[in-house]
Amino acid sequence: MTSRPTTRPVSRRGLLTGGALTAGALAGAAAVTAARTGEPTAPPGEAVPVAAVGTAVEPFHGARQSGIATDPQAHAAFVAFTLKPGTDRAALGRMLRLLSDDAARLTQGRPALADTEPELGLLPARLTVTFGFGPGLYTAAGLDDRRPPSVADLPAFRIDRLQPRWSGGDLLLQICADDLVTVAHAQRVLVKDSRPFATVRWVQQGFRRAAGTEPGRTQRNLFGQLDGTANPKPGGPLETAVWVPDGPAWLRDSTTLVVRRISMNLETWDLLGRAERELSVGRRLGTGAPVTGTAEHDEPDFAATGPDGLTVIPDFSHVTRSRVTDDRYKILRRPYNYDGTPTPDGHADSGLVFASYQADITRQFLPIQQRLAEQDLLNEWTTPIGSAVFAIPPGCPEGGWIGQQLLG
Amino acid sequence: MTSRPTTRPVSRRGLLTGGALTAGALAGAAAVTAARTGEPTAPPGEAVPVAAVGTAVEPFHGARQSGIATDPQAHAAFVAFTLKPGTDRAALGRMLRLLSDDAARLTQGRPALADTEPELGLLPARLTVTFGFGPGLYTAAGLDDRRPPSVADLPAFRIDRLQPRWSGGDLLLQICADDLVTVAHAQRVLVKDSRPFATVRWVQQGFRRAAGTEPGRTQRNLFGQLDGTANPKPGGPLETAVWVPDGPAWLRDSTTLVVRRISMNLETWDLLGRAERELSVGRRLGTGAPVTGTAEHDEPDFAATGPDGLTVIPDFSHVTRSRVTDDRYKILRRPYNYDGTPTPDGHADSGLVFASYQADITRQFLPIQQRLAEQDLLNEWTTPIGSAVFAIPPGCPEGGWIGQQLLG
Repeated sequence: MTSRPTTRPVSRRGLLTGGALTAGALAGAAAVTAARTGEPTAPPGEAVPVAAVGTAVEPFHGARQSGIATDPQAHAAFVAFTLKPGTDRAALGRMLRLLSDDAARLTQGRPALADTEPELGLLPARLTVTFGFGPGLYTAAGLDDRRPPSVADLPAFRIDRLQPRWSGGDLLLQICADDLVTVAHAQRVLVKDSRPFATVRWVQQGFRRAAGTEPGRTQRNLFGQLDGTANPKPGGPLETAVWVPDGPAWLRDSTTLVVRRISMNLETWDLLGRAERELSVGRRLGTGAPVTGTAEHDEPDFAATGPDGLTVIPDFSHVTRSRVTDDRYKILRRPYNYDGTPTPDGHADSGLVFASYQADITRQFLPIQQRLAEQDLLNEWTTPIGSAVFAIPPGCPEGGWIGQQLLG
Repeated sequence: MTSRPTTRPVSRRGLLTGGALTAGALAGAAAVTAARTGEPTAPPGEAVPVAAVGTAVEPFHGARQSGIATDPQAHAAFVAFTLKPGTDRAALGRMLRLLSDDAARLTQGRPALADTEPELGLLPARLTVTFGFGPGLYTAAGLDDRRPPSVADLPAFRIDRLQPRWSGGDLLLQICADDLVTVAHAQRVLVKDSRPFATVRWVQQGFRRAAGTEPGRTQRNLFGQLDGTANPKPGGPLETAVWVPDGPAWLRDSTTLVVRRISMNLETWDLLGRAERELSVGRRLGTGAPVTGTAEHDEPDFAATGPDGLTVIPDFSHVTRSRVTDDRYKILRRPYNYDGTPTPDGHADSGLVFASYQADITRQFLPIQQRLAEQDLLNEWTTPIGSAVFAIPPGCPEGGWIGQQLLG
């Protein structure tokens, strides 16, 4: 285990006279070690009645990581790290033990081991912390031979305008919860844990509808579209699409994650009429139904033609180009909206933190992405500005840690 | 009324063949006007069952604006504007009619008048839009004599490190809801409405616990403190503290708002032990009770002394320095947390969008702020980095608009 933040003895008299707490005194305080024994617990007498949103819990331990098949929470922070020089296999093990231990506590509504704000750790609100390993982590560990081959930089697509500040990463923590205070606190704890080993490379915050708003509904993005209709259905199809079924212990029950930051140009999108938008996607904006159908999950009829003899669903519509029928080639999309600060002129900085899970990036994600990059009407209004890929290792049992099968 | 975004005719054949929608064609499209008659409505067949969080509604019309005495929603965007040269009294009237009309619709779960994403306007989630007028708005309208005297730049405090990018503003929209998609959509609509008249000066996004997490609880900030315990109680005390009871029509039922961006240094705060933190504030972290009491709303006993003969509550504690007993001098704090991107070293960019409502800034806010700026143990860990003041005009009846009493 690495060193933890320590508390500093401050004299009560100093506080009472207001003289002790100068910035200078504090600057030196980091060096003072007052061992804190035991772990912080919820303060006594905190029997607070809370509603179900705050106390709802998702499992941390298990064969597979949470935050993937988990019904998406309202908020996410994707936090990517760059490993520091010298963070080798042994150091990675220490870091991941620490992160796993605190993630396990926080997701279950218990403060972290050395939680400096334990009151903020008591409401998990379905918190999940999902660990991803970028290609650089395998190299740092001297384990390139264990890297899933499809976890590698994606080929360049002609539509890409990638920015380094949203791209790459050796380690990812996907932190999701239905409460943003919970996400902020978990992020703070886990970033502190990581500091001896890694620097923060980028953070992407995203949101979906709040808990209790539209239970069971497909996410709606800031274009107003339902987003994720074609996801593999829970159960067998999702099982097939997402999870690696066999192989060595560090591969079985693993998956992969592609994170793409997709800027959405609301300025030009807003110039389109409703019919044109629906044809671009191939789906109705209101219901998400294919333009040939009436309900969200109706099968699109790509053969149907209109009075003009042309197909009703345009050949270059998003639904046509992204179409996959075989569950083995589907991806599980778990995107979040982002909305930054508009320009002085009032142009929005909006888009999607696209996140897709699939057993194999090369077999599943890439063919779809290549078809979309070649021809997709939506490309006129969307631009990928960030990209990163991660292996999502298997879960761990109680007392274990994420990455143990790989690094242990 | 100002011009609205227009739709552009796109040929269906063009879409079907993928040839029509080049970026060049779109760039020219803004000039094409295809008048849209009538207003967009929710698409047919959208009878979507949703839970109470999404459909809950706060009033827009009334003698007083919502978003002040309203039980704080989970999310807020404070959007400040700078008026463009030439936005005079008449133009302000047009802008405020437009903004009031769209705010009224969106808060009631109806799409805006020319809503380009009407599906995002159907779930208000307790949306409120609160309008604030900065000093510059009165000058632009030629109505400096009607500006409430206390609505003026605050004096400089020695603790201030104010940044222009978080300070000032001629017009403020405080957009609050329990759902962040709703906030993002309302912000988009209202910023678009404002564009002929004003530029975006700054946006501050903030959050509190999610709806259904801790109903009725005082907000907890990222230091882990309960924040707002000393607020005037709903009913008479809040009435006295917040609302202007009489005067001309543009003053009666008005109030004022101070927005301060307070950076909170978690790095140094985290070095303190629990007892020292509690003495700095004068309250327990867990319950929010004064250190001389057991429950959040217990009266602090400033005379109580400890075994060492010193007062139990330090003289320079936050609770001592911010103490106000007379309701006429209290302020209504309605703060939101913010959490930006940490530095590569993992130092948090966290703090508080402090927002306080009071009938008179000079009489109520300033004395408290001056006492805190002189001596407050919390000053060691907090830094004001932004500041703005606004008059909050009275509400308006159905068919009216915010600012009508002042500008109409």
